[in-house]
Amino acid sequence: MISQETAPAVPPLPHISKLVIIGVGLIGGSFALALRQAGLVEHVLGIGRSPENMQRALALGVIDAYTDDFAAALPGADFVLLAVPVRQTAHIMSNMAPYLDTNTIVSDVGSTKQHVVLAARAHLHAHLDRFIPAHPIAGTEFSGAQAADPNLFRNKPLILTPLPENSPQALAFVEALWQHCGAKISHLPVERHDQILAAISHLPHMLAFTLMQHIRTLGGNDPMALLRLAGTSLDDMTRIAGSSPEMWRDICQDNRAALLAQIEAYQAQLSNLHQMLAQHDDQTLERLFAEARETRRHWLETKNQSP
Amino acid sequence: MISQETAPAVPPLPHISKLVIIGVGLIGGSFALALRQAGLVEHVLGIGRSPENMQRALALGVIDAYTDDFAAALPGADFVLLAVPVRQTAHIMSNMAPYLDTNTIVSDVGSTKQHVVLAARAHLHAHLDRFIPAHPIAGTEFSGAQAADPNLFRNKPLILTPLPENSPQALAFVEALWQHCGAKISHLPVERHDQILAAISHLPHMLAFTLMQHIRTLGGNDPMALLRLAGTSLDDMTRIAGSSPEMWRDICQDNRAALLAQIEAYQAQLSNLHQMLAQHDDQTLERLFAEARETRRHWLETKNQSP
Repeated sequence: MISQETAPAVPPLPHISKLVIIGVGLIGGSFALALRQAGLVEHVLGIGRSPENMQRALALGVIDAYTDDFAAALPGADFVLLAVPVRQTAHIMSNMAPYLDTNTIVSDVGSTKQHVVLAARAHLHAHLDRFIPAHPIAGTEFSGAQAADPNLFRNKPLILTPLPENSPQALAFVEALWQHCGAKISHLPVERHDQILAAISHLPHMLAFTLMQHIRTLGGNDPMALLRLAGTSLDDMTRIAGSSPEMWRDICQDNRAALLAQIEAYQAQLSNLHQMLAQHDDQTLERLFAEARETRRHWLETKNQSP
Repeated sequence: MISQETAPAVPPLPHISKLVIIGVGLIGGSFALALRQAGLVEHVLGIGRSPENMQRALALGVIDAYTDDFAAALPGADFVLLAVPVRQTAHIMSNMAPYLDTNTIVSDVGSTKQHVVLAARAHLHAHLDRFIPAHPIAGTEFSGAQAADPNLFRNKPLILTPLPENSPQALAFVEALWQHCGAKISHLPVERHDQILAAISHLPHMLAFTLMQHIRTLGGNDPMALLRLAGTSLDDMTRIAGSSPEMWRDICQDNRAALLAQIEAYQAQLSNLHQMLAQHDDQTLERLFAEARETRRHWLETKNQSP
């Protein structure tokens, strides 16, 4: 019997006459560029606080125009992307609400979702059928419109956390936009998203901050005497300790319970390793290292497969 | 007054008629290539267990010839580099000892030093004036002669842990060789080396293995369901969990006490962060993140300064 390969599902071509990006930084700017490159958008309007950044975004062709006036910007928009720090979401939603057309679809990129959904329930309650919460797992250590890259989301995870109120058409529209950006789409319940992110992103950041702080403490008056002897392993393990303290304070606030649980589970694993080492149980230690390496190898293989 | 700049100290040009590399892998091979490129060596003889690897080393011009016969290889050597896993050091030293010329200078590249020094005291006791323990902090995830790179040590730390018995001339010779490889030289007492490496290298590896193992445990039957949602932060924080389990078991054995102390100090720091988070002390948390970022920023600046 001849096996028949079916072509991968091609999402419908969405079309956006007027796209509004609130916060034209790395994520918002990259999204605009990706949709432009895919030929899906006619006019891109930016909203942002920094005139310097908006000028740069304009000069780089990320946006076609900008304003700080929601009343002028929002009417007639097909799609609005909120790409601002999570803690600003509620304030911006309350500013948006009076000017939002019934048909406009809205989405966000917040890295914790329960807080964003609470804000939407408070400020966009008349619009919940068309507010689709989303989180692209992509980023670099750079920020601002000048860092925008149409390929930023290519082959990167994108998590949608749909609400019961969401219209299936609005959900399919947002999903199709991100597919055209090259992202690999997953759906998760809101609470599960925040639990999983606590494990795969928030915990690693806490470990990196703690490691840098540990070396700093150990080094006393002259931590550089230690650090100038360090190689790439410490460099890798502390790269994300270079992230924004304010942003990580906010994420800690927004996802406190899940993050506390992850730190506790990690502490238990580390105590387990400490015990093996203290008890000279080197065979079990070697098996643990081998299992960790095997899990990582399998992960890398999965990542390198085409989506 | 016109300020006068003094030229940086130029190390004396060492010359090696016959270099013997025991273990022609990433480190041994890169050392040979760097000295060749600097024009400091006439003939490079490799000693190794794998004929395939030695053939590759020969084909790539890393070595000029190879053998597995110490009796044939060692007489007439100016310099011998041991570049084998630490646990093989004692065995190889006992094989070398009968054939070592009085004038031959010997060094190693072991990543823990107390064990190597014990082995030297046991097997090279007649040669301690000319055995100079050394540790280049350089490496990649690749191995074998095909990974050898003459620039591997450029701007990387190299720690010498001289013995009281070491001849100043032999020490200066080894130091000059590594300077010509581009390494940044430090001197440390043997025990202090192992304590510092426990903090800046061995602890980070334990944290990476533990993080990978934590995610694996959390994922239950299907850790890939979690991992396919992960971004570059988890990737960075587990890269070194891809390292050799056998090598890390050996490092744990060799540096057990110092590593246990480091894990305990890290656990205390992590408990501290956990407590701030649990007590909603978000200002202190933000200050900790900022201090960690500042320490890292300062470190990167120091690294990017020319040596």
